[in-house]
Order: sequence, then C-alpha cells, then structure tokens
Amino acid sequence: MTGQYVYPFEKGDKSMKSILGGKGANLSEMAKIGLPVPPGFIVTTEACNRYLSEGEKLWPELESDILENLKALEQRVERSFGGNPPLLISIRSGAVHSMPGMMDTILNLGLNPTTVEHLSREAGDRHFALDCYRRFLQMFGDVVLKVGHHNFENILTEARREKQVKTDSELDEAALEKIIEDFSALILKESGREFPLDVKEQLFMAVEAVFKSWNTDRAVVYRQANRIPDDLGTAVNVQVMVFGNLGEDSATGVAFTRNPSNGEPKIYGEYLLNAQGEDVVAGIRTPRPLEGLKEDLPEAYEQFIDTCRILEKHYLDMQDIEFTIERKKLYMLQTRTGKRTASAAMRIAVDMVDEGLIDKTEALQRIEPDQLEQLMHWRIDPDVELNYIASGLPASPGAASGKVVFDADRTHDMAEEGEKVLLVRPETTPDDIHGIIAAKGVLTSRGGMTSHAAVVARGMGKPCVCGCEKLRIDPGKGTFYVDDQEYQEGEILSIDGTTGQVILGEAPLIEPQFTDQFYELLSWADDIRRLKVRANVDNPDDARRAVELGAQGIGLCRTEHMFMAAERIPVVQKMILSTDQEKREAALEELLPMQQDDFKGIFKEMAGYPVTIRLLDPPLHEFLPNREELLLEVDQLQRKGSDQEQLRDKEKLLQKVQSLSEYNPMLGHRGCRLGLVYPEIYRMQVRAIILAAFELLEEGIAPEKLQPEIMIPLVGHREEMDRMRQLVEETVSELFEEKGKQFPYLVGTMIELPRACLVADQLAGSAEFFSFGTNDLTQTTLGYSRDDSEGKFLPFYLQKKILTANPFAEIDQEGVGQLVDIAIQKGKEARPGLKVGICGEHGGDPASIRFFNAAGLDYVSCSPYRLPIARLSAARAVIMEKEN
Amino acid sequence: MTGQYVYPFEKGDKSMKSILGGKGANLSEMAKIGLPVPPGFIVTTEACNRYLSEGEKLWPELESDILENLKALEQRVERSFGGNPPLLISIRSGAVHSMPGMMDTILNLGLNPTTVEHLSREAGDRHFALDCYRRFLQMFGDVVLKVGHHNFENILTEARREKQVKTDSELDEAALEKIIEDFSALILKESGREFPLDVKEQLFMAVEAVFKSWNTDRAVVYRQANRIPDDLGTAVNVQVMVFGNLGEDSATGVAFTRNPSNGEPKIYGEYLLNAQGEDVVAGIRTPRPLEGLKEDLPEAYEQFIDTCRILEKHYLDMQDIEFTIERKKLYMLQTRTGKRTASAAMRIAVDMVDEGLIDKTEALQRIEPDQLEQLMHWRIDPDVELNYIASGLPASPGAASGKVVFDADRTHDMAEEGEKVLLVRPETTPDDIHGIIAAKGVLTSRGGMTSHAAVVARGMGKPCVCGCEKLRIDPGKGTFYVDDQEYQEGEILSIDGTTGQVILGEAPLIEPQFTDQFYELLSWADDIRRLKVRANVDNPDDARRAVELGAQGIGLCRTEHMFMAAERIPVVQKMILSTDQEKREAALEELLPMQQDDFKGIFKEMAGYPVTIRLLDPPLHEFLPNREELLLEVDQLQRKGSDQEQLRDKEKLLQKVQSLSEYNPMLGHRGCRLGLVYPEIYRMQVRAIILAAFELLEEGIAPEKLQPEIMIPLVGHREEMDRMRQLVEETVSELFEEKGKQFPYLVGTMIELPRACLVADQLAGSAEFFSFGTNDLTQTTLGYSRDDSEGKFLPFYLQKKILTANPFAEIDQEGVGQLVDIAIQKGKEARPGLKVGICGEHGGDPASIRFFNAAGLDYVSCSPYRLPIARLSAARAVIMEKEN
Repeated sequence: MTGQYVYPFEKGDKSMKSILGGKGANLSEMAKIGLPVPPGFIVTTEACNRYLSEGEKLWPELESDILENLKALEQRVERSFGGNPPLLISIRSGAVHSMPGMMDTILNLGLNPTTVEHLSREAGDRHFALDCYRRFLQMFGDVVLKVGHHNFENILTEARREKQVKTDSELDEAALEKIIEDFSALILKESGREFPLDVKEQLFMAVEAVFKSWNTDRAVVYRQANRIPDDLGTAVNVQVMVFGNLGEDSATGVAFTRNPSNGEPKIYGEYLLNAQGEDVVAGIRTPRPLEGLKEDLPEAYEQFIDTCRILEKHYLDMQDIEFTIERKKLYMLQTRTGKRTASAAMRIAVDMVDEGLIDKTEALQRIEPDQLEQLMHWRIDPDVELNYIASGLPASPGAASGKVVFDADRTHDMAEEGEKVLLVRPETTPDDIHGIIAAKGVLTSRGGMTSHAAVVARGMGKPCVCGCEKLRIDPGKGTFYVDDQEYQEGEILSIDGTTGQVILGEAPLIEPQFTDQFYELLSWADDIRRLKVRANVDNPDDARRAVELGAQGIGLCRTEHMFMAAERIPVVQKMILSTDQEKREAALEELLPMQQDDFKGIFKEMAGYPVTIRLLDPPLHEFLPNREELLLEVDQLQRKGSDQEQLRDKEKLLQKVQSLSEYNPMLGHRGCRLGLVYPEIYRMQVRAIILAAFELLEEGIAPEKLQPEIMIPLVGHREEMDRMRQLVEETVSELFEEKGKQFPYLVGTMIELPRACLVADQLAGSAEFFSFGTNDLTQTTLGYSRDDSEGKFLPFYLQKKILTANPFAEIDQEGVGQLVDIAIQKGKEARPGLKVGICGEHGGDPASIRFFNAAGLDYVSCSPYRLPIARLSAARAVIMEKEN
Repeated sequence: MTGQYVYPFEKGDKSMKSILGGKGANLSEMAKIGLPVPPGFIVTTEACNRYLSEGEKLWPELESDILENLKALEQRVERSFGGNPPLLISIRSGAVHSMPGMMDTILNLGLNPTTVEHLSREAGDRHFALDCYRRFLQMFGDVVLKVGHHNFENILTEARREKQVKTDSELDEAALEKIIEDFSALILKESGREFPLDVKEQLFMAVEAVFKSWNTDRAVVYRQANRIPDDLGTAVNVQVMVFGNLGEDSATGVAFTRNPSNGEPKIYGEYLLNAQGEDVVAGIRTPRPLEGLKEDLPEAYEQFIDTCRILEKHYLDMQDIEFTIERKKLYMLQTRTGKRTASAAMRIAVDMVDEGLIDKTEALQRIEPDQLEQLMHWRIDPDVELNYIASGLPASPGAASGKVVFDADRTHDMAEEGEKVLLVRPETTPDDIHGIIAAKGVLTSRGGMTSHAAVVARGMGKPCVCGCEKLRIDPGKGTFYVDDQEYQEGEILSIDGTTGQVILGEAPLIEPQFTDQFYELLSWADDIRRLKVRANVDNPDDARRAVELGAQGIGLCRTEHMFMAAERIPVVQKMILSTDQEKREAALEELLPMQQDDFKGIFKEMAGYPVTIRLLDPPLHEFLPNREELLLEVDQLQRKGSDQEQLRDKEKLLQKVQSLSEYNPMLGHRGCRLGLVYPEIYRMQVRAIILAAFELLEEGIAPEKLQPEIMIPLVGHREEMDRMRQLVEETVSELFEEKGKQFPYLVGTMIELPRACLVADQLAGSAEFFSFGTNDLTQTTLGYSRDDSEGKFLPFYLQKKILTANPFAEIDQEGVGQLVDIAIQKGKEARPGLKVGICGEHGGDPASIRFFNAAGLDYVSCSPYRLPIARLSAARAVIMEKEN
C-alpha cells in the first residue's frame, strides 16, 4: 500500500503497472519520454480494492485528491471543468492485465446543456458540440446508468430513418437536438433518475462505475478462464479530451507497429477522418488503411510513423497503439504490447534479433510455447462464423471435415473413391482400424481421452473428438441425433480435435505452416536447452517426421499399436484365445516377423538415436470385441436358435471376454503383470527387437548406431523388474550367441505407479533407465480415472477452481511432482548414471517441462506435433532458471 | 558358519536350533538335563546346505567326522556298527521348523544278513530280529532308494493273505524270511541296484537322502505356503536304536503334556505295546489311551508322567513328546512345543499364568492372533472328509450350508418358512438385499472382494464366497453347472467364506465359542496395548456386538450401506434420477429421517465413544440396476415392440445408467467428488447426524457422550477438504443455532490416495483427524484393482513369490507404509494434536497392526469379528517393540 491513490501521468512510469494498471502506466511512460500525450491522472488499483472492500463508497480524501488533480489539469490546459472554455475528459478503465468485459471508455465527460454551448462557440462548430454531447449521453447512460445499449440505438435508427440518412454524422443540428432531448428522457425513464448535470457528479459516478465493473459477471468469468487473480483491481484513467471529430483535419485510429497476423515489419493500421475513437471499432463507417493518412494529413502521418519507431525501440516489442489527430496535431492515447498470431510472433522475434533490438534469449521468451500448437495442425479458420452443434473431449488435435459414416468398411471404401469421410461411432474397437486410417477424423459418442479411438488417432496425428455425449447414433435407421435434431448419415460435419467442438457443415481449414523463422528460432532454443527431446511414435513414417521436427530419439514406442493393425488383430486374438502355452506360442510365432518388420523400419529411421520400446502394456481384453455388443449378439442368436455352431463360437468368445473383463482395467492385468504371467509374449517382442536390429547390421548399419532401450511397463515391485530384466537378458544373450555378434542395448522401466517412485532405489538395481509415465502416475496418485474424470467431475473441478489446472495437461507438481523428485533421488542414489526421462503427455506441456528441467531429467518425450513446443519450452526453462 | 558339521548330543542344547534343527536341539537339551535319551549325534543344517550347493556329494572330512562320532557311540553303548553285538541306529531329519513332506525316519539301520542274526541271538527273539530287518528294508527301500511304498505293501498283503492273518506282527518267522527275500528282490528290480549290505554305505546313503529331501516338491510347496526360507537346510539325527517291539514289556507312544484340542491340563497320549514308532501312526493297530500304561507298565508310566512335568517346567510350554519303553526302561525320543487349537492355546496360556509358569506378557505371545479367527465364526469341522467341488474368493468369513436358490424373493420366502437357504447368483445388486439378509450365506460366480455381495455380506457378518468362476448358473433352466456337472436349484451346498471353498452337501459346522480364558486373556492385552481399537459397523446391532467384543468407538460407519436397504433403494434411485437439484432435494428429504434413525440407534449404543461417520462414498451407479441386464431388457422390449411406455422408461433408465457408468469406478466420481458436485447429499447426511444426536440429548444423554466424527472420503486436494469442512460447519452451525444447544464434534478426512499423503500438511489445516483407508491406498499406490487382481494375477504373484504377502491382507510396508509415515509426519507438523487412525481391513491384521503401532497411530478399526485379533495384536506389538 502506498497510501497515494491518485497519480498524475508525470509521476508514473511503465514499471508501475500493478498500481496504475497497464494503460495508465504506459500513458505515463509515453509522457515521460516526451511523446504527445494529453495530460491526465490515474486513480490507482489500490483505490479500487479499497472501494470494493469497504462498502463501495468513495471516501472524502479520495474525492478531494481527484478534485485537486483535476484542478491541476485545468490550470495546465487553461480550461475549466464545467466552465468556459470547458474542460472535457475521458474516463477509461485500466487493469494490470488487459481484460475485455470491463467498463471501457466514457468520452466527452464534462458536458451539460451549458458547457455544450461553450464548446460550440469555442470550436465554431455547433454540430460538433452537439455530436459530442449526444455521444456522451449515450455512453454515460449505457455504461454508468445501465440503460440498455439498444434503447439508444433505437432512437438513432428512428432519427436516421426520419432524415433519410445513412450515418449518424449526416444528422443535422436539429436532429441532434431532438436526439439529446430523447436520450435525456430515456435515461430518466429507464434508470429512474435524471442525467446528472453537475460535472463533478458525472466524474465520481464514472469512477465508481469503473471500479464496479471489476466485478461484473463477464469480467469474473474472463479472469477465471485466464487465471487472473480476483484481487488485483482496476485503475481509472482520467485524461483531457482531444477530438478527432473536429473536421477533415482531424482523425482517430489504431495501429500495430508490425503486422499482427504474419509479423511483416511494416506498420499496420486503420483510421477515420473526423471521428471519435468508438467509430473505428463500431464498424458503421469503414476505416481506411493507415497509408491513406500520408495523403490526408502528411505531417501528422510522418510524426506518427516516427512515434511508432520510438515506441518499438523503447519497449523493444511490437506495439498496439491508439491515436487521435486534432486539427493536424497528433496525440497518443494508448500503447501496449500487441497480441499476435504464432507465426507473427515467430517472425517478429527473429526479425528483432536481426535488427539488433533484442537478443536470442529474449526472442525465445517472446513466443508462448502453446501458441506453436496452431502451427502444427490443420485448424479451423477462426474468423469464420460456424454452426457449433455439440462438443466432446479434445482427444487428438487438428481439424477435419467430411461426410458422416457409421461403419469402418464403408469409410474405407468411400475414402478409396476419393471422398472425405468422418468415421462416427459410439466407440471404436480394433476392428475399426482401417476405417480410422481412411477417415479424415474420428468422432465418438462414448469414451475418454484414453479410449481406443483417442489413442489410435493421436498416434496417427489424426483429429479426433471423443465422448461427445450429445450425439446419439442409430445405425439401423442410418440417422444420428444431436439433442433432438435428426441428421442423416452422409451429412457433412467438421470436428476440431484441439477444442472438442463439432460443427455442422464444412468448416474452412487453415493449413499448418513452418516458416524459416520457425526453424531458426527453434535452432536457438536447441542451443540453450539442457533437456533432450524425444518423440512418442510407433511407426517409421512418424519417426521420420519426428526427426524432421527435432526428435533426438524415441522416448516411447508403444508396441500394442502394432498389434492393432487390421491384418494382425485376428492373429493377436488367436494368441489370446489359446487355451495352452503351445498354441499361444504358435500364434506369437506368426506375429514375430510382423513386429520385427515394424522395429526394423523404426530403427532405420532413427539410426544413431536411442529408441525406447515399451513391451506390451494394455490388458488383453482390449484386443477382443466389445463385451456388450457380444452379449446382445449371443442373446439374439440364442433367441433365433438357428445357427448352433455360430452360437457356440460366440458363446465361447463371450466367456473369454467376460473372464478377461475387468472392473478397473486401469488397475488390472496389464503391463509387466502380463509379461510375468505370459513370458512368451515378452520373449517374442524382445526377439523381434533384436532380430530387427540384426537385419540392419547386415545391411551395414554400425552397431553403435543401434540403441534399443527395452522398457518394462507398470513395474511396482523389485521382483517384477529383476525377473523381467532376466527374461530380456536371457532372450537377448541367446540371439547374440546364435549370431556371434552383439550391439549395446539397455533395459529399463516405466515409472508410473506411486509405489515405483517410493522403491525407486530397489528398481534401479535392475533398471538402467527410468521413464516417467506421468499419465498413469497422475491417475494413480490422484485417484482419477482419466477416461472418467475428463468428461465428468474434472471440468466441474476446474470451473469451481477446486483445481487450478487439469492435472493431465499440466503436471501436478505438489503431488505427482513430489513422487517424481523422490524417484529421481532414490534412483540415482542406487545407480548414479541412471538415465531419466518422461514419456507421458506432460512431456509436451510447457509448465510441466519447466518442472522436469528443474527436477533434473535427461529428456522429455512427446508426440511429434508437440516437439517444437517441447524444444522451445526446454530452452525457456533454462532461461527462467537463470533468471531466478 | 561354524566349520563344525557334526555334534554329539552332549555338545548341543535347545538354543542351537538353527544348526542342529528342532529335533536335534531338543534331544540334546533333554540329554543335558538328565532325561533318558538314547545317545546319538547330529549332522548340521550347514552340512546340508554345503551338500546341496556343492554338487550333492558328501565330502571326505564330513564322512570321517560322522564315522568318528559313530565310533564314540559304539564305545559308549559297547556295541559294534555292523558287528556283534550290533549297533543299530535311527536316522531322522530335523529342520529348524517342523516340516511335513521331508524325509522323516529310517529305523533299524545297521542290519544286514549278518547283523540280523547277531540281533536275534542277543535278543533271544528271532521273530523280533527278522521283523526289524523287514521294517528296515521297507523304510530304506522306500525312502532312500525311492521304491514306491505300495510295492512293499503288496508283498505284505499277499503274505498276510497266504498266512490268513490280520496284522504283520502275526506273521511267523518263515513268512518274515520270505518277505525279506521278496523285499530284497523288489529293491533290486525297482531301483536297479542291490540293497547295500555295507552298513556304512547304508548310513551315508541315508544321510544323503535326508539332505536331498529338503528339495522335494512337497517340501518346497510347504515352505512357500508357510513362508519358510529356502536356504535353511535340514539337519540329520543319528541315534542309537531302542526297541518298543521287544515284547509285552516294551512299548512306544506319543503324548501331549496338555490336551491340544481344549487345553485341559492333563497329559493326553496314546501308546502301543510291543511296537515300533511307525505303528502308532500307521493306524493298523489301534493305539490305547495313555492311562492304560499305568496298568501295563506302572513304573515306566510314573517315570513318564514325571518326565512330562519336568519338560513342561523346563520349556514352559505344552510339549508334544515321543517315547519308547524297551523292556520296562523309558527312553525319550522327541520333545517339541505342541500344536494346539485356538481355544486350547487360550486355556493353556491362562492356566500357565495361574500356575505361575509364565507371566501375562508371555501368555499373550503364546496366541497367534490369526488363530482367534476360528473362534469368531461358524466353521466347518476340519476332521470330516468333504466333497469340495469348487472354490472362489474368501469374501466374508464363516461357513454356512443350505439349499441353493437363484432368486432373492424366493430366498426370502423360503427362509420365512424356516428353510436354510444359500443365495447363489452371478452377482448381487442392491435389489437382492432382502435375499442376502434372509440367506445363510451368499455365493456368486462373478465379482471380487469388494463386489456388492462381498461388501454387504461382510457388513452383516454373513459367510460369502465370491467370484467362483467354475460355477455357471442357468436361471432359465433352474440348473447350475460346476465344470460340466449339472445340478438342480435346491441342491444343498456348503460354503466356507474363510477359505473360499464350495462343498457339495451339508457340511458339519462348529459353533463359535468364547471361553472365560478368552475374555481374561484379552483383558490382559487391553492392559498392555497402546493402540485403541475401534470397529467398522453401520447398524446398532453390530455396534452392540462390537462393544461386547471390546470396541472403543466406531472407526468407520459407511453410510452407503444404509442407502442399500430394500425399502430405501427406490428413494435413493429417485434421488439419483432427479433431473434438477430441487427434485433431488425432495428425495433427500425423504431419506433424511431414515438416516437420522440409523444414526440415533448407533449413537445410543456407542454413547461415550467416538463414532466416525463417512459421508457417501461410492459412485452413484452402484445404486442403480446392472447395466448389462438393463441392456438386454431394453433390447427385448424393443424387439417385442408392445409396451411402449415401459420401453421408454427403461430406455431412460439405461441412458442414465450409461451416462453414470465408468471405465474405472475405483478412480471415478465418488467420495468427496460427489459431495462437491452434489453438496445437497452431504448436507442431508450431516443434518441427519446432528439431528440424531439432538434426539438423544433430548432423551437425556449428556452432550459430552456424543462424539460424532464426520469423515470426508477420498480427499486429495486442500480445496476439497477446505470446502467440505465449510459445508459441514455451516450445516452444523445452522442446526446448533436453531436448537440453541451444541455438542462437540470433529471433521476429518480419510487418507486413501497417495496425493493425500503427500500433501497431508495442507489437508491437516482443515482436518481434525485422519483415518487411513488402506484398502484404497493400496489399490492406488500399487495400481492394483482389488476386485480384479485377487481373482487374477495376485494368486500367481503370491505363488511365484513376486510378492511375499497379499498387500490387501497385510499392509505393504515398503510402499504404502512409506506413504503412511509421510502423511503422519506432515499431518502432525501442521496440526500437532491430529488424531490418526486406520479403518481399512488391515486394521484387523496382526502384522499390519505391528506397523501401525510403530507408526504412531492412535487407533485401528476393523470389523467386529476381528476386534479380539486387533486387541491381542496391539498388545503383542507393544511387547515386541520393547523386546527390540
């Protein structure tokens, strides 16, 4: 608390944002460096907080401070507030963070029936004065007295209709006088009180209105959404009016010092002659590109261009500027760091380094890593109005449009014929895999972020929206419903897998783009970061793309995805349904060459880089048909009573599905628990890995370029790790002996159970590396089923701020983070050279990467499309660490 | 390692069990205190271990040590091994822990065609000598040379048939000579080698056979089952033979110094005149009660009775003794602590305290707490042969028999008519509750230890076997199948909920019994223990029983069980199906008086004791019908197409069930996550608690006798606890104000998530007590779904020793224990007076209680039937702590 509640611009500067708000601090700063800013003063955020916490009443000292500063203004500009020549002022809110939804602006405050006549005489322009008064009444009535905006518009519309003109500025003086009369009557009627003619009353009411606007519903919601604390408060900027509407030598405009869409280093702006600020935004008159000002008002234009350069050099960043020209004289009304697209941010940062304005470290801090996401996927053009009809879970990022098809076979056939198709199903199973491959995107009505559809789509980098519960599909009728609206199969929908939105019709899509600046900036990040970056991929195509995007290895190759390919599923099912080990091994023998081929392709792409391969993880029932569908089928076959053989087969299958089905598959028979009970499965996988590597050796790849890291999933007990390591080593040694050759490899474990963290010292006895599976570790540590919570209580928790962030997106440092720290400490105590990485989805999240950097991990691994984010975040983590 | 591999009895004592084995150490001890023990020596366990680890060959030094000791024996008894008069010896194995399945005994070693004639002449009894030789050939052939036992029996049977006699002892000399010839031929034929005539070869082969028997399959399995380490090895006892078969003045027998069934302080034993040891056990001749010896051989009898007294005083425990009388002279061949039933253990311990033999502390250590379990429930008579046809999970202890009924209604009706009924279903739902109440026990083919059937049955103390997958029920046909055998509904089965066994027919049951000694011993435990003991109960009847069994409060009152009563389920379902908060609150208003009544009854029983009430915990879908059954019903209704209204209702219900259904309900929308989303449910429950307490106040109970402790389940984040505490406090304050009265109460939380442990300091800000829910904490820390793992990989893990104990039975100290320690430390740092207890099922497990005692908990809480176990274990924990 400073105790000082009002600051004239001369006393402030840009470092004082927390008490002056962003707008006020920058007005002060501009004044300080000699730019033409109309004088004014700021009522601080602390005043706002005191006002809101102490019964929402202005207190006498504050009122007298404001009046004192007002007097100083009067003296400075030689005008009189409520007198002649009249001092008019603008009132603007100004929070620390720019915040839409709060009271914005009241212009022309200080006008009343008396001062309007003074103004008229002074300007020699009665039309101008009346127009100012009309605007003031409208803004004050709307914003301070809460008379609905449309009421004023109705009166204006009526007036224009009567005078048969198109714009308000064409209305003549008589019409304006009539409007002023009608506005005053409207205010009385709607607000129950006269419009205040006392200018001081106008001022204090406006200040209070700004204070109160801090707590409007819209502002509160915005702060929640953007995680802005509720106790910052807003400042109030009181500033002498300048007029852009004083004729054709006056103007008002906005500009960015560089292009905010693409970053082009050219001032980009718009202006209107003879207008006040809100006209530019309102869209009634179309503003002209800034270049036009060069002809209209050349001197002011030159001065403005110079000022822009000064501001950019001063702030060392692209600025978003508001200005007014009053009778050829330029005034600056606002400057702030301009918002920009990801590609603009890239270009501006790189250009500014080239221009010597900032260094590379600073450039890296100019890009919010999450922004890069937009560059990586097809996305829906944000500037187009769309018909959003439903939403689900954002299961795999990117956008797609296509004809709705309910069936994987038809999806495949139609795609072959060149049609764009969306596969839309209650949920998908391994039987649908060819449909998913053929579809532009996948939409399901059931299932969560780790459902089959979600996992497979993410693996393929294909857009997917899951668990869209509003959607009801009736395949029999060939229809689907959203709410009660019926649609036919074949209808065109668009999905946005980044947000989870479902759109009726074909949405215009924007292609992903990588500019030179993109690559340059990331190379700077690579120079700085300590964390290595790997990718989670499980096929050669993705591996190639990952290397292009900077992957330094594969951190997680999920072997189960390889099991799910359409032609393999029958063999996998045969293996699972085997009644004895011999039959199971025969089926595994069939799978061996397929897996070997997968690994060969991946190793080839990744030659010289480590490849971490996780042995089979999911419970076996994931490879079998859906239990409920099977139940209905058997029920129907039983009722028909015709095909006894088919019935028996299905019954047998159902029995197996039921015997394998689990109440909590997340905590069930999976991971190394499979490898221990069915060692022949893991043995086959290890053989496939080693044999694939031998193939490459034979093709001439040097042994040291092969770096397979064999990873055992879901380990919790030392015995599990010890025995699995033994199984791997025995299998490998046998092959090494057989071939008379060898190459280096590692055996390690995924750390994804709290117990694994707590006994990490024991596990490190057999594990040469740890890879944190933070998805499952989050599920178990917090007791959240990701599939269930993301569609159910988690959104509620986030909305009500029980949680500050989604723990599946940003790692829960307080809880899961403690376990990560414990595991690293214990693990390295037992094995000093232990390699430690993370392959959960947090590996691509900036805040989480900052934590992983601090925790001392060796690498993060994420999906290929998040690699640029990870590289940038890892660099920023190092920079932030140095700064602290 | 001592380096000394052979000890004569004179050099050993009872403290040397680890190298001499139990039998050898006790023979040495008896010799040391002057009891009549035939002389002998012991080859140590260390020799065994060296033998097994170094290629299974006796080494020269060991052989010469043995021969040296043998020579000393020869000198001492003035006999010659292989000479005249012949020295005969017995060879017995003797491990540290008594272990069936290992080689037991070879008698009469040292006989061959020459020495048998010496023996005959010496004893003046050729029949005796031949009988000894016959026995020796048989035992040596069977045990050392692995000639199947039945081969010898066949020859004996044939001989008896030929001579037309009933017992072997009636065979004449000629017959014995023929048998000896046949046995020798048999050995040559079956083992491929001649029976060794060299007596030293006999000895060394016997020693090796004992060593090798350490690793027989049966011995390995037994060690696994009893958690005996594999590296202990067995000793070999070599002892001079004495003969109970030297005529009617000789005898052999076994005895317990007290009755091992009921503990009566009277020697209890059996003997046979003119017999060798194995005859008593073999059951061909019926042994006589020991009292008979008083008449047969009065002097030896008196000496034996004195010896028993001496041994009991010396060992201060009931002894299990083997003896032989050779021509009126008593020899002691074994003494060891006798096994006994739980009630015998109780009585013996208490009597020995009364007799001044041991003190109370020692008495408490004499009872294995788990043994008490048998006293608490009806159990199946262990001495009866039964037809075990299947097994499932031991879901709720106790045994029951009854007619199989598939339907809850009929179960109820038949029970009303006085029939004993078992409710047998695929799984149970809340709709079956009246059937469970009426049934003697419950058997399901699906579902785990936390399935509906299991939880409800445990709550009622009713026997239950769950997840019996061999069982297939076909309600349509009124039949069930085990394997492929068909049975009719109405068949009588018995179940043992303590072991999970299912038995065909009515098994004889033994009633639970509490003796005076039981109560006395537990009162001693109460004097010693530091941990308080509470019970997990949720109805007044169980509360009363808990107090009788020593409960000092209720540690867990599960309010959901109250929701599941038959007449309440419709109201609960109405509440869940409500589409808005208003309707939900109306349904809750209906539930309020019911819950209030429950709490009133419980508070009344527990006046003066704390009662911890957990607010609603399970996911709401647990109160709704089964999803798959509903799916089939809807499918059938759709097909029929008749009753449209019913179809619509069912479809709506199905939709709700589907929208609430979860992939991993264990990690789903439950616990305080319900309370946060539906605060009205928790508010109702808190109101019911407080209003119930007020009723009792009005009935005159003092306010300080009411100690409700309101417990919030599944808390993981500070915000959850803070908000739930606020909800409770607001609700309570309102009622306190309304009534103008108040009473003390606490608000606390269950600690059942790893995260809760890690941020326990934060939670302790709002929580006045912690109660560890170690069931769920184990599930999340280890990533084991209890329902899934207990029927699936967990048995495999235990069998293969990947785990040393079932973590749901005995707390996983290495993993879960670390989290418990962390939570207590952090919790008490933040709130020094924090009350800490545990209410998971580990609260009744002895090993876990030892850990909880050491961890500094205030109390453990368990099911009423485990209270005696908990009280005793808590006392033993204190004793053990002091000893260490």
